[in-house]
Amino acid sequence: MEGMQKAVKWYPPSYDIRVEHVPIPKVQHPDDVIVKVQLAGLCGSDLHIYRGHEDVDAELICGHEFVGTVVEMGGSFGSHAQQRPELYRTLRLGDKVVSPFTVSCGECHFCRVGFTCRCMHSVLFGIPALPGGQAQYVRVPKAGGTLFKVESVTAASKDGSVSCLADSSLLLLADILPTGVFAALQVLQHAKTSPMLTASPYPFGGFDRILTLAIVGLGPVGVCAAVSLLDMLSGIQQTKDVQYRVVAIDPNESRRAKMTKIAEAIGASRKSFAVADIPQAKRTVSEWTSGIGCNAILEVVGNNSALELAYGLVRPFGSVSSVGVHQEPPLPFMGRDLYNKNISFDFGRCPVRAMLPIASKILAKYQAVFGSIGEKISLIERVVSLEDAPKSYELFDKGKCGKILFDPWK
Amino acid sequence: MEGMQKAVKWYPPSYDIRVEHVPIPKVQHPDDVIVKVQLAGLCGSDLHIYRGHEDVDAELICGHEFVGTVVEMGGSFGSHAQQRPELYRTLRLGDKVVSPFTVSCGECHFCRVGFTCRCMHSVLFGIPALPGGQAQYVRVPKAGGTLFKVESVTAASKDGSVSCLADSSLLLLADILPTGVFAALQVLQHAKTSPMLTASPYPFGGFDRILTLAIVGLGPVGVCAAVSLLDMLSGIQQTKDVQYRVVAIDPNESRRAKMTKIAEAIGASRKSFAVADIPQAKRTVSEWTSGIGCNAILEVVGNNSALELAYGLVRPFGSVSSVGVHQEPPLPFMGRDLYNKNISFDFGRCPVRAMLPIASKILAKYQAVFGSIGEKISLIERVVSLEDAPKSYELFDKGKCGKILFDPWK
Repeated sequence: MEGMQKAVKWYPPSYDIRVEHVPIPKVQHPDDVIVKVQLAGLCGSDLHIYRGHEDVDAELICGHEFVGTVVEMGGSFGSHAQQRPELYRTLRLGDKVVSPFTVSCGECHFCRVGFTCRCMHSVLFGIPALPGGQAQYVRVPKAGGTLFKVESVTAASKDGSVSCLADSSLLLLADILPTGVFAALQVLQHAKTSPMLTASPYPFGGFDRILTLAIVGLGPVGVCAAVSLLDMLSGIQQTKDVQYRVVAIDPNESRRAKMTKIAEAIGASRKSFAVADIPQAKRTVSEWTSGIGCNAILEVVGNNSALELAYGLVRPFGSVSSVGVHQEPPLPFMGRDLYNKNISFDFGRCPVRAMLPIASKILAKYQAVFGSIGEKISLIERVVSLEDAPKSYELFDKGKCGKILFDPWK
Repeated sequence: MEGMQKAVKWYPPSYDIRVEHVPIPKVQHPDDVIVKVQLAGLCGSDLHIYRGHEDVDAELICGHEFVGTVVEMGGSFGSHAQQRPELYRTLRLGDKVVSPFTVSCGECHFCRVGFTCRCMHSVLFGIPALPGGQAQYVRVPKAGGTLFKVESVTAASKDGSVSCLADSSLLLLADILPTGVFAALQVLQHAKTSPMLTASPYPFGGFDRILTLAIVGLGPVGVCAAVSLLDMLSGIQQTKDVQYRVVAIDPNESRRAKMTKIAEAIGASRKSFAVADIPQAKRTVSEWTSGIGCNAILEVVGNNSALELAYGLVRPFGSVSSVGVHQEPPLPFMGRDLYNKNISFDFGRCPVRAMLPIASKILAKYQAVFGSIGEKISLIERVVSLEDAPKSYELFDKGKCGKILFDPWK
């Protein structure tokens, strides 16, 4: 693999996106793989760098969401790779792969226990130290731990067909769908929520069987969280005597309209799933719970007003699963606020690699939502060429378009 | 029950404690019980009111820790009290009882699920609205839900004898021992810790079997947390293939010396339990974990420096169980700090009533520690008369004495 490729580059200090020809990346370490990118995503968190908020002072190749095929593998791959993550033995040239937005070795303490986003070798794609996926080729370090082979997804789909999983759909596995799954899972696995699902009282009381939850923020990740949560809850309801009610909240009308269409498309009951703006949500939660508040909140925005709304909606002894990328502002709470409500928080980045087995099943199950482009129920607005990157960043930054994907070969 | 009694009163704005004669309380509601106080405790959180930090502008009878006997019961008690908490049928005049530091009805949503400290009828003892226990008699509202009959404790003790459970020992059930139990339980039940104990991976990873924990703060509650945690961990170790290491931290040398003596008295292994000041603790955790940090922290102080120490000691994807009474200062973290560490927090007050079944077993098991007064391993320094209250508050406020109990009949 010699020669040059097209890539989207960002230049400091801010708002400077250029499409340039740069060298095709090479294998630098035996654990590396070179992926030929089929599609790359433009993600809300790309805007942190775009706007100059991340203290980065060197140019970089953008992007941390990509799907593609393996075109080169380092010397670690092959039948000799015993004792290592399975992919070191099983990955082949031409395999279709998705990459989480961070590198994870699959071998350190954090990877072994499923906290893959805090791998001891973790690097984010799309920073000066690791060129990103908005390019024709991308180098993936620790690839046997990091990458996810797509055949695992197609095997999980109901009818087993490959055709139903378009690349645009698979791209959602790089970040936003696993992050939605993680938000939902953290809430349902919390020690204060799970007694209502498992009927194991906490610790010696009885338990309620009506779970009231809210999702704060209906951007693409919020929608993924809603679909994941409803899927998990309907699964639980089939085996346990439990009722649930979820309110999905966003001040933006077009986001609410899309969430409503998607809820219809996946068959969510209007009794158990409501879409609301902030004042409506407060009234709904108050009516549903006689003023007590929600058991738990999925906070999918990552700023202080979202945290404050979550605090206001949650009941005493409730929990908040906060998966948004928070920035510099101090938390908007006094210690006393948190003591007085016996509140629990789970903060932080999604361990994408660990979530992929669940996320890929959900992806295959809800192809009507995740497989479409540009429709009323689609999370992806359109696919454009790399040349459109400067304009696309600008529109996305101004909230004038939804999620955009780049086809580097268009 | 007519006439006057002695009581410890606080007068605003601060530092004004008087011993006065006041009317003996009467049953005001059919759910009330009047308790003749045998011993009442002086607790660290009494100092918040003492110092004038709680925005209270009316005089009050102090104290939220007491043990005593039932001398009068309202009309709700008796065989007619079906469908209500058991004590409405089974409580008798003369029964020995302990009260949690807050009222809990036993019937609302929060009580039924075990979150008794956030009962919808919750009132703290020792505020203007509810006279406290540093008196000869105290009125207990919602007493069939609030009170705990002591025979349940003696039944749980190994040799079944009543004599081994002195009143001074039982008093620890009102607040500090259950709060220590709660701190330990929150850590061990956390979704991010429990996979290491149950071998159920989170969610699809493997799991480690070495649990590294720290306790921040070795006041009386911190010692109770340490004893409870070690008891639970040794129980787990008997049935599961798990190792643990706990470091107990306090900058105060005499507190560390007491913790060390108590650890010896309960047979804690020096390999798995260390007592340290802050710099030693940082080194110990770093050595034990190769620099990764603790799985979880029991934060038993309730201020920002304790929270910051906890943050510094915990590893990514770790959890902090914070049971201290936090005050007005904003939390000392930026959103980004919490995102970057994937940290979890459980804040808030102990649900004492729900913890009493576990706490009373631990009390009975470790009588060498909990049953002694004024010894090197005792949590209680001495028992004094109510007349000594002004002096005792002053000494306690200045850190010049340990835990003091009042005998109102002395």
